[in-house]
Amino acid sequence: MNPKRYFPILQWLPGYGRLALSRDLLAAVIVTIMLIPQSLAYAMLAGLPPEVGLYASIAPLLAYAVFGTSRTLAVGPVAVVSLMTAAAVGQVAPQGSPEYLGAALVLALLSGLILTLMGLARLGFLANFLSHPVISGFITASGLIIAASQLKHVLGVEASGHNLLELATSLAGSVPGFNGPTLAIGLGVLAFLYAARRWLKPALLRLGVAPRPADMLTKAAPILAVLVTTLATWGLGLDALGVAVVGTVPAGLPPLTLPGGDIGLWRELFMAALLISLVGFVESVSVGQTLAAKRRQRIDPDQELVGLGTSNIAASFTGGMPVTGGFARSVVNFDAGAETPAAGAFTAVGIALAALLLTPLIAYLPIATLAATIIVAVLSLVDLPAIKRTWAYSRCDAAAMLATLGVTLAHGVESGILAGVGLSLALHLYYTSRPHSAIVGRVPGTEHFRNVQRHRVETDPRLAILRVDESLYFANARYLEDTVMELAARQPGLEHIVLACQAVNVIDASALESLEAINARLKDASVRLHLAEVKGPVMDRLQHTAFCQALTGQVFLSTYDAWRALRDNTALGSRCGQVARGTAEIPT
Amino acid sequence: MNPKRYFPILQWLPGYGRLALSRDLLAAVIVTIMLIPQSLAYAMLAGLPPEVGLYASIAPLLAYAVFGTSRTLAVGPVAVVSLMTAAAVGQVAPQGSPEYLGAALVLALLSGLILTLMGLARLGFLANFLSHPVISGFITASGLIIAASQLKHVLGVEASGHNLLELATSLAGSVPGFNGPTLAIGLGVLAFLYAARRWLKPALLRLGVAPRPADMLTKAAPILAVLVTTLATWGLGLDALGVAVVGTVPAGLPPLTLPGGDIGLWRELFMAALLISLVGFVESVSVGQTLAAKRRQRIDPDQELVGLGTSNIAASFTGGMPVTGGFARSVVNFDAGAETPAAGAFTAVGIALAALLLTPLIAYLPIATLAATIIVAVLSLVDLPAIKRTWAYSRCDAAAMLATLGVTLAHGVESGILAGVGLSLALHLYYTSRPHSAIVGRVPGTEHFRNVQRHRVETDPRLAILRVDESLYFANARYLEDTVMELAARQPGLEHIVLACQAVNVIDASALESLEAINARLKDASVRLHLAEVKGPVMDRLQHTAFCQALTGQVFLSTYDAWRALRDNTALGSRCGQVARGTAEIPT
Repeated sequence: MNPKRYFPILQWLPGYGRLALSRDLLAAVIVTIMLIPQSLAYAMLAGLPPEVGLYASIAPLLAYAVFGTSRTLAVGPVAVVSLMTAAAVGQVAPQGSPEYLGAALVLALLSGLILTLMGLARLGFLANFLSHPVISGFITASGLIIAASQLKHVLGVEASGHNLLELATSLAGSVPGFNGPTLAIGLGVLAFLYAARRWLKPALLRLGVAPRPADMLTKAAPILAVLVTTLATWGLGLDALGVAVVGTVPAGLPPLTLPGGDIGLWRELFMAALLISLVGFVESVSVGQTLAAKRRQRIDPDQELVGLGTSNIAASFTGGMPVTGGFARSVVNFDAGAETPAAGAFTAVGIALAALLLTPLIAYLPIATLAATIIVAVLSLVDLPAIKRTWAYSRCDAAAMLATLGVTLAHGVESGILAGVGLSLALHLYYTSRPHSAIVGRVPGTEHFRNVQRHRVETDPRLAILRVDESLYFANARYLEDTVMELAARQPGLEHIVLACQAVNVIDASALESLEAINARLKDASVRLHLAEVKGPVMDRLQHTAFCQALTGQVFLSTYDAWRALRDNTALGSRCGQVARGTAEIPT
Repeated sequence: MNPKRYFPILQWLPGYGRLALSRDLLAAVIVTIMLIPQSLAYAMLAGLPPEVGLYASIAPLLAYAVFGTSRTLAVGPVAVVSLMTAAAVGQVAPQGSPEYLGAALVLALLSGLILTLMGLARLGFLANFLSHPVISGFITASGLIIAASQLKHVLGVEASGHNLLELATSLAGSVPGFNGPTLAIGLGVLAFLYAARRWLKPALLRLGVAPRPADMLTKAAPILAVLVTTLATWGLGLDALGVAVVGTVPAGLPPLTLPGGDIGLWRELFMAALLISLVGFVESVSVGQTLAAKRRQRIDPDQELVGLGTSNIAASFTGGMPVTGGFARSVVNFDAGAETPAAGAFTAVGIALAALLLTPLIAYLPIATLAATIIVAVLSLVDLPAIKRTWAYSRCDAAAMLATLGVTLAHGVESGILAGVGLSLALHLYYTSRPHSAIVGRVPGTEHFRNVQRHRVETDPRLAILRVDESLYFANARYLEDTVMELAARQPGLEHIVLACQAVNVIDASALESLEAINARLKDASVRLHLAEVKGPVMDRLQHTAFCQALTGQVFLSTYDAWRALRDNTALGSRCGQVARGTAEIPT
């Protein structure tokens, strides 16, 4: 066992020097400033008190610094995971109750355990089943739902719901009761943030500011909005005019908490925890890989699971909520020059200081400001052109994307993901169950063989060469039987069928039995079955099978060998059992 | 629309002649004799009155003659489907109640509708997900459960259960109360049938009987057992000594029945009906294809679904039970010389006559005799060596087989199939999510490239050629990212990475985005990405994508072209968007 693999901190801590320290400290200061309003906002999005967001940005960062493999990933509460938390916890407890807080802790713990166990069992591949189109559709839908859910705060009205339909209905009824000052703050912040995103960076660049600082100043715009609206609310007494504010936030370090609840609660939250884990992991790994690649570094996805898992476990024991690696903050961390995960640890210290000292200032922060920052952040995740792009490339992928998007909007986050994953698996299996195959003929004068339907090629009525463009496994084994037997039934003078296997990477037991059946049925019909271009690993396994003994024909190294031998009746192939490893392996 | 496709009867009826008529009639007589005890036995196995088995062997055969595409398949109640029927119906109604009969009709109707709709929607490929190992494990487990469930009839005791554990427990408690005369009949028939199977055919062959008649006489042994034990019971009054007999069976043609029940019942039976449909279809199609191939005929799997579906619908309206194509009876039908589905129709007439005239004789038939015929029939389905055979070929397939076998024995038929299908899908996806790939180098002096780990080949520190042996799709897209980025991180002097794509049949949208990410990350790391040997259809789709515009490297026709160009800095490849269809297509 290599301790450096399981404790990636050992890879960088021993060589940690002054230069890295100063860079990490600078990055930590910048990320801390950015993270304070984000933490508050995402806690609110999850239906939790604002301090929970701060707590979730302390211990998890320390855990990730020890166990995570990305040098620059910044973990903490993120928009999509907070939305999923609200949806899951909202189904087991009323918002604002102690049970709601407790359930959020259980969700974080469950998610942490799932991630850690997946990492230790090296099950990171499970995240692959969330295909890009499904993730993309899901993020877009989540962005729309989150934006819609925050509208009530901008309007200063009550509304609730976990999907777009519920939210729209609920909002429609309550819009007339909007609060003037709240709406002014909300729209003002929205306009300011939008303008900052759109025009601030170009303006700064024109003023001669270097690109990186310009980018970071732009990203600090929410801080400015928070400061200004908080001061305005305090100075003008806007809270007395109906502007909802964050209110008293207890000052102090995160409490030690023990996630509890009965087994029934754990079971109810399990599916949500699994989906949160997978979605969070996929997002985090893709950010981590992108940043690592810029410096030719590597992240280890299985160890990343452990890193994120321990972060969530840490969150659950310190009054937090489910966390994962965030896109925007990681990019800021990277751009600010973070060298090692120590930057994350320093950020944790920064947030802890904020939790100790800054909470009195937060009391007058208008909720409309937080809502506006959330809306602007999540609308940048909404990628509707992706639908068109994906549609143009692949109908099948676009169907999975639209299903995820539609079901998430209409029915909620969990159903949306499950629908997308189910549909993409079903479509994948459907297409591999009807693999592309082609009857090929010889390009005159060459050793090349091509599709008879696309090219002018030589054929022989006694001989059919079928090229199968897919591995043979249970989902397409019977399709192969159908294809071959149809071929035999259609061509009465047929004496030989050659399966050209250059694209066959695997033949599983079902396909092997289908080949046996095909061989036996062709024998009954007096047609011999041959194989050509069988790959080395495939041939290794075939050699000791009953199919190999029963094969009526031969195994040829190349399609051309088969063509020559079967047309001219020369003996170029080998009996199946006698093929040596080297000779059967095709040099592709 | 081609009416011959949807009404296959039109393919043979217009040309039906005297020769075919005489052959079909002979086959029908033989199959009828064989089918009478089978129908009674399988109805009993399903927990239904014996006449239901006869009814299920009349109308369904007529429907299949019109809609089925196999010339020789014989449909009716079969062992595995009857077991599944008992398991499903037993969960919604107590055996012996009118509700139990009604539920069996609903199950047949549902199964018929599912099959017919699947056929019309050409969804026959769904049956592919029952892989050979799953089917094999399921049939073996079913055979063991059925044999165990019939032991009580041989012993003359009460016992019940839908899996091996329940049955064993139940039997263990009731064995001491066995009935002597019943046991004598049961063991006698078992010994006789076993002996007939083992020694009768060789003996007949030695006596000069031709193989086919010898085979058929052997298969008629159950009839002899039925006749002798029925006469003995009647003559010796064994029923008064506690030998359970079939009892009064109403004489007459099948009643017209209307499957009813509330929507809740339909919903409860839906999953069972789906599994019965799939299992029945898979078994039936494999028999049908085997027999068709012997005469170079074809069956159309999608139309077969319609044939079996209408048979089940017919069963549900005529007091029957779920049916499918049976293996033993189809082989007998074929061997007896059946030429067309008319043989099936004549068999239906034969069974109808039996239902009208023979029922008084059946009253004294001992149930132990039927149980013994079932036990001998199903034990021939138990194939334990298949486990060893499959294990030797593929651990993965063996795992699916053992899971199906184990869960079916321990928990019942539905869980068993679902476990097997789930596991085989998961394993398939797991393996394709970690596709085989190899760094290849040039075999000196040739244009061939081989795995650097297996062969002594030329390489270049500035150049890495990665051959991917699998289509690129969502389940392995991220694995590809990992593999490529690891390669780039490991080899510091690297300038070019070439993906050799000869085994890549599809690149889906997820894989495309991964390729985009790989390209962008490699660009950040100053490594150029190239493609080689991209197949025509794959290149067609890639050409209009953003990836193609962004690709830092080139697309080469062959790996050798890439090697030459990148080592010598000559321009042999093309910019991605400019590759013409013809030139990018590889002649494999």
